[in-house]
Amino acid sequence: MELAAYLRLYDIGELHSIKGIAEGVENSNFLITTDDGPFILTLYEKRVASEDLPFFLGLKEHLADAGFSCPRPIAMKSGETLGTLAGRPSAIISFLDGLSVSEPTVKNCYQVGAALGKMHLLASDFKIHRKNALTLENWRPLFEASGERANEVQEGLVKFISTELDFLEKNWPGTLPSGVIHADLFPDNVFFLKDQLSGFIDFYFACNDLLAFDLATCINAWCFDAKNVFEPEKANALIRGYVSERPLSQAEYDALPILCRGSALRFLLTRLYDWLNVPPGALVVPKKPDEYIEKLRFHQTINQTPSYELSAKEAGLL
Amino acid sequence: MELAAYLRLYDIGELHSIKGIAEGVENSNFLITTDDGPFILTLYEKRVASEDLPFFLGLKEHLADAGFSCPRPIAMKSGETLGTLAGRPSAIISFLDGLSVSEPTVKNCYQVGAALGKMHLLASDFKIHRKNALTLENWRPLFEASGERANEVQEGLVKFISTELDFLEKNWPGTLPSGVIHADLFPDNVFFLKDQLSGFIDFYFACNDLLAFDLATCINAWCFDAKNVFEPEKANALIRGYVSERPLSQAEYDALPILCRGSALRFLLTRLYDWLNVPPGALVVPKKPDEYIEKLRFHQTINQTPSYELSAKEAGLL
Repeated sequence: MELAAYLRLYDIGELHSIKGIAEGVENSNFLITTDDGPFILTLYEKRVASEDLPFFLGLKEHLADAGFSCPRPIAMKSGETLGTLAGRPSAIISFLDGLSVSEPTVKNCYQVGAALGKMHLLASDFKIHRKNALTLENWRPLFEASGERANEVQEGLVKFISTELDFLEKNWPGTLPSGVIHADLFPDNVFFLKDQLSGFIDFYFACNDLLAFDLATCINAWCFDAKNVFEPEKANALIRGYVSERPLSQAEYDALPILCRGSALRFLLTRLYDWLNVPPGALVVPKKPDEYIEKLRFHQTINQTPSYELSAKEAGLL
Repeated sequence: MELAAYLRLYDIGELHSIKGIAEGVENSNFLITTDDGPFILTLYEKRVASEDLPFFLGLKEHLADAGFSCPRPIAMKSGETLGTLAGRPSAIISFLDGLSVSEPTVKNCYQVGAALGKMHLLASDFKIHRKNALTLENWRPLFEASGERANEVQEGLVKFISTELDFLEKNWPGTLPSGVIHADLFPDNVFFLKDQLSGFIDFYFACNDLLAFDLATCINAWCFDAKNVFEPEKANALIRGYVSERPLSQAEYDALPILCRGSALRFLLTRLYDWLNVPPGALVVPKKPDEYIEKLRFHQTINQTPSYELSAKEAGLL
């Protein structure tokens, strides 16, 4: 059995069970148990570029070594974490106990913010660099890939996006602190166990970009209710948690509204593209972009960070 | 969280993690871990008739109580094993360690035979009865549901099946010992752990029928190579294992060729129907019926059990 031979490259004992896991569209994931307990076995499919794997695996290893709670790639006896199984790049990763929350509380938002700030600090001495493929310069080509069809989703959407892109290209902050960001820290990707945050998962969008852009993505993902109404007390908690670990500079604080607009547009554009390009027989029905159209419209009404009902004091600047 | 509340009906502690499992087309299965370890949570979808659930859950409970290795339904504090979650019938079932084998050995066949004989004996005092919906009387209606389209799969297949059905209806043995059979004991549904059989899974075709019909299904599923060539030493081992636990009567021994033909036709017919009726966008591509056409053709050449190169002595009759 090929898998049994593969496991002998590791020092985790013999295989007891294997189950395919239904989540994860990018890769094939299996829950395996061995003499040493449960692990996740991942086969990397073609949507993940193999040249990025040392970044993804190295980042998780770096963070886990630093005491951050995230899945840890298990090293083979050779010391390597990246292997080959069934003709594909593969890795065995520790099993992270915990559950994502479908309705985050204010306390959850504080915890996520704090863990994000900690992650940004701990990743600051990680040596590998990965460009963000979904940042400002990529949005216009992504928009053009949908083009006029955007109006099929909502009347006037082409004009709406085009105007927003012009604005963001003119006003995007270029000089804020940058570093390794998670870039996809939605509630799905944060586990909690008995009310405590137990870790971040799914680092397959992680990259180098503005640190505060990660915080903006979290504001969009964690701080709106099911009807897309902004919840300022959650955003306050998220930011207070963040600055409890990593203080924001005045420039980062001031840039939050435009970073939130940019992050909303980034998810609007990918969801728009995926929505317009569902392959026939797709296993996963893509999310409609509407949620992020509404969030972007909201942020367009915000001229400065205190309009989020967040004072510089709450943000830890004073 | 609805699941957390559901778990409080049980005495298995708090939820630590949940993963959707990619296998099992009939139901939705989740691997959950709680304070007490791993379990399988099953939500029964409409393909499983809810009136059959007491049979399926009761059978596994009955067998597990008798010391047979199979997943055990966990009783709620109320004593019930069948619950309701997310609007569907649900159950929590113990996690059975082990791996199915893709290339069974002769030894594996002996082990499966022995476990099957044991299961037949232990289930003999199980009180609930479930008719086999895929036995002799069901084959003609199932064949008619495919009708002339069978020839799309293979030239002459309509005539081939029709002749076989006539033969089986005339010659089917009616008076052999009957009881609870697994009815779907393919290698997928048998787990091994470090060379020992660790249990049977997936009892969702289990029913009452001729006991030796279960053995015939195993001969078809375990004792042909990848090119559908019969492997007599595996069939011998399977039967020797079986009779080590439950002796075959002379009539059962003599009936093996026709039971093998019947079982081959049963899988031929369901695969034929599924092949001709793939829903658009199906998640699971059905298996082509060809394998069972070939197996049936083989059994048609066998006039009596010793022609399988299996003597009455090997079958434990002498």
